[in-house]
Amino acid sequence: MTSKDLDQMRKDALDIFLAGVRAVEPAAAVKRYCQRKGNELRIHEKVYDLTQFRNIYIIGAGKAGGPMARAMEEILGERITEGLVCVKYGHLAELSRVQLIEAAHPVPDDKGLAAAEAILGLVSKAGEEDLVLCLISGGGSALLPLPVEGLSLEDKQETTKTLLACGAAIHEINALRKHMSRVKGGGLARAVYPATLVSLILSDVIGDDLDVIASGPTVPDLSSFQDCMNIVKKYGIRDMIPEKVRAFFQKGVEGEAPETPKTGDPVFAETESVIIGSNLACVLAAEEKAQGLGYNTVVLSTMIEGETKEVAGVHVAIAKEVQKTGHPISCPACVLSGGETTVTITGRGLGGRNQEFVLAGAMTLNGVEGIVILSAGTDGNDGPTDAAGAIADGQTIARSQALGLNPSDFLSGNDSYHFFQKLGDLIKTGPTNTNVMDLRILLVK
Amino acid sequence: MTSKDLDQMRKDALDIFLAGVRAVEPAAAVKRYCQRKGNELRIHEKVYDLTQFRNIYIIGAGKAGGPMARAMEEILGERITEGLVCVKYGHLAELSRVQLIEAAHPVPDDKGLAAAEAILGLVSKAGEEDLVLCLISGGGSALLPLPVEGLSLEDKQETTKTLLACGAAIHEINALRKHMSRVKGGGLARAVYPATLVSLILSDVIGDDLDVIASGPTVPDLSSFQDCMNIVKKYGIRDMIPEKVRAFFQKGVEGEAPETPKTGDPVFAETESVIIGSNLACVLAAEEKAQGLGYNTVVLSTMIEGETKEVAGVHVAIAKEVQKTGHPISCPACVLSGGETTVTITGRGLGGRNQEFVLAGAMTLNGVEGIVILSAGTDGNDGPTDAAGAIADGQTIARSQALGLNPSDFLSGNDSYHFFQKLGDLIKTGPTNTNVMDLRILLVK
Repeated sequence: MTSKDLDQMRKDALDIFLAGVRAVEPAAAVKRYCQRKGNELRIHEKVYDLTQFRNIYIIGAGKAGGPMARAMEEILGERITEGLVCVKYGHLAELSRVQLIEAAHPVPDDKGLAAAEAILGLVSKAGEEDLVLCLISGGGSALLPLPVEGLSLEDKQETTKTLLACGAAIHEINALRKHMSRVKGGGLARAVYPATLVSLILSDVIGDDLDVIASGPTVPDLSSFQDCMNIVKKYGIRDMIPEKVRAFFQKGVEGEAPETPKTGDPVFAETESVIIGSNLACVLAAEEKAQGLGYNTVVLSTMIEGETKEVAGVHVAIAKEVQKTGHPISCPACVLSGGETTVTITGRGLGGRNQEFVLAGAMTLNGVEGIVILSAGTDGNDGPTDAAGAIADGQTIARSQALGLNPSDFLSGNDSYHFFQKLGDLIKTGPTNTNVMDLRILLVK
Repeated sequence: MTSKDLDQMRKDALDIFLAGVRAVEPAAAVKRYCQRKGNELRIHEKVYDLTQFRNIYIIGAGKAGGPMARAMEEILGERITEGLVCVKYGHLAELSRVQLIEAAHPVPDDKGLAAAEAILGLVSKAGEEDLVLCLISGGGSALLPLPVEGLSLEDKQETTKTLLACGAAIHEINALRKHMSRVKGGGLARAVYPATLVSLILSDVIGDDLDVIASGPTVPDLSSFQDCMNIVKKYGIRDMIPEKVRAFFQKGVEGEAPETPKTGDPVFAETESVIIGSNLACVLAAEEKAQGLGYNTVVLSTMIEGETKEVAGVHVAIAKEVQKTGHPISCPACVLSGGETTVTITGRGLGGRNQEFVLAGAMTLNGVEGIVILSAGTDGNDGPTDAAGAIADGQTIARSQALGLNPSDFLSGNDSYHFFQKLGDLIKTGPTNTNVMDLRILLVK
């Protein structure tokens, strides 16, 4: 393998990544699922007759709110009566009919609370003859914080912290959070009722479950007050959560606080939820690009989680098998996966899960010819860095050692950013305005 | 999915595992690669004219030595002049011409040392007109310990311990071990020279590299005395290894001790090495069985290593993707992998990497219908237990909870054996007399 071949493979890997990201660009994704012909608005498989609606409201929350709202403006133009979408600070966009409100993410603030109140205020005006289009993307949960009456944002946050500390599972934490919220767990759908509600969703969670994305503001809640109480008992945290919260759950169990709406509730009669972008869509677009470049492809899974360096080891083992025996596919090959791994931080360096994935992978690939490894976040932000991820091959470790770097030190120090920065192998896309978790690409020749 | 369907899937998984193990049964593997017709002995792709050989000697070492030697006796009968094979305690077999010697594994003892000396004595009788057949299987390295003159078994062991403690890589440890040995690193081939040498190898290492299996007694060594010295310097262990060992390496670097034989050395002129069984052979036989049972199949890799519970997470993520989107293959599906994972022990329970893999997998599969997970060691021994592995499905966790068990406690306590024992879900094959690492099987409907 010449260095020219290797350069070409690295370029291919980057092109494959960018093709994946392009497929989930928020405005493009909205337009792929929403098409208008005069008074006919087709959303995925359903056609809405716009003459049937008096008003059309655009609401929503999430980091991709700006470009999603702009796409809706381009589609619906003056048919939009009014709109209010909450986005993260710094994520404003130029819009003509929809108003964007900035708020804090990932820790909610009062601006988010005010935005949530304003959105509920807006949809309270919507009646049976109105259409509400709800645009949801990553961060939507933190950007619309609105505790039930009697509880404060701090009460909710303290409860969440206690749940995290005691080791509760994420679905258990969400059960309590949904019940303490006027938006989550179907709360938004209840507020929109009796208007028609269509949600367009850019999924940033593993498995794309609608009741998990942004804590399911427009879909039935699967948990009950009784479940919440059982979780509090299970972890023995009764005396560790705020007294007001405890009292609220007690009232709920006794039927004196309103349950979240469940499957079959009339508030969901005229609702629709459409996932317009997801990790799978991104991975499949990347796969298509790889095939176009002449690679045999295999998509392992879009649900990859777990400790980053261990996950990297499994990926490299698969790439090595491809090269050695042609399993699971023969060369030239592109092995793809998605999802989001975690890093147990033990060092004080700078990095992110994608950069650490590539560093751990490069160490296992040291000296192996003909394999390129890339991992990057589709939002362009890996951990607290300005890089989306990194790229490496079998010569990366030797190159780093020639520069006097010790790869093991960078890995144990969680300092993958500085490692790849010195090699010039960071991938920088800038903010992509989308987020469907990560994309991993291994090319094998 | 009915419980009958699930029972059938569990039965299928077990059948697939057993088909994999059968394919690498030592005697069957020998016979697949060695066939005799009168005076023609075909070994893999080469044919040997037995009339050209005056004597045929059988030597070797490894846990599968008994059945391998027996198969050779059945093939060559009275043409065998003499034979000496070292096996692990308790692994004797009834033989007529080949003598088995028992020794200790994994920590070598004096019996192994005596066996190595006896084998070198035997092959010293072999001349240009003789054929030596060498049978190598898992454990072969520990079962033939023979330090170079001037060093003791304890010197070697202390050096190995120091290398392990300082974090040296396995190929670095092997470089030193080969140089301190009269058998490893081509030493056996040198002793056999000028007789013709054919090695039949049952591989128990990831990647099946001939210089790694049993420390490569019959193939060229890729490392040098200078490499050994560099490794000692790199880890700063000069003063931590026995003085005699230090002096020996110094002599080696100065050309006063014999180097291990390298590629092109005349001792390898009439040698052949044939891998008759490996993890890949096992996995591919399992795949064939699965296809026969109607499953679509994918072999991920035979080189899977890493922390067991993390590796289990990746496997389950792939099985879930199969079920949800038909990637990488569609249902009914069988996802296969091989290799050998590790367990970082934090608890005081009883278990093995395979049982822990299945326990961690079962926790991630809790409540999921239509997926069965099996992992087992091909030698029938998972960790220090009498089970080969375990089997589970989406109901396993609920069944365990109904019995009052807490799966998380068993996982964090590394107590997978007792978990599956209580459920009746251990896989017990008894000793299989073979060892090509582990086989993992996930069935998805």
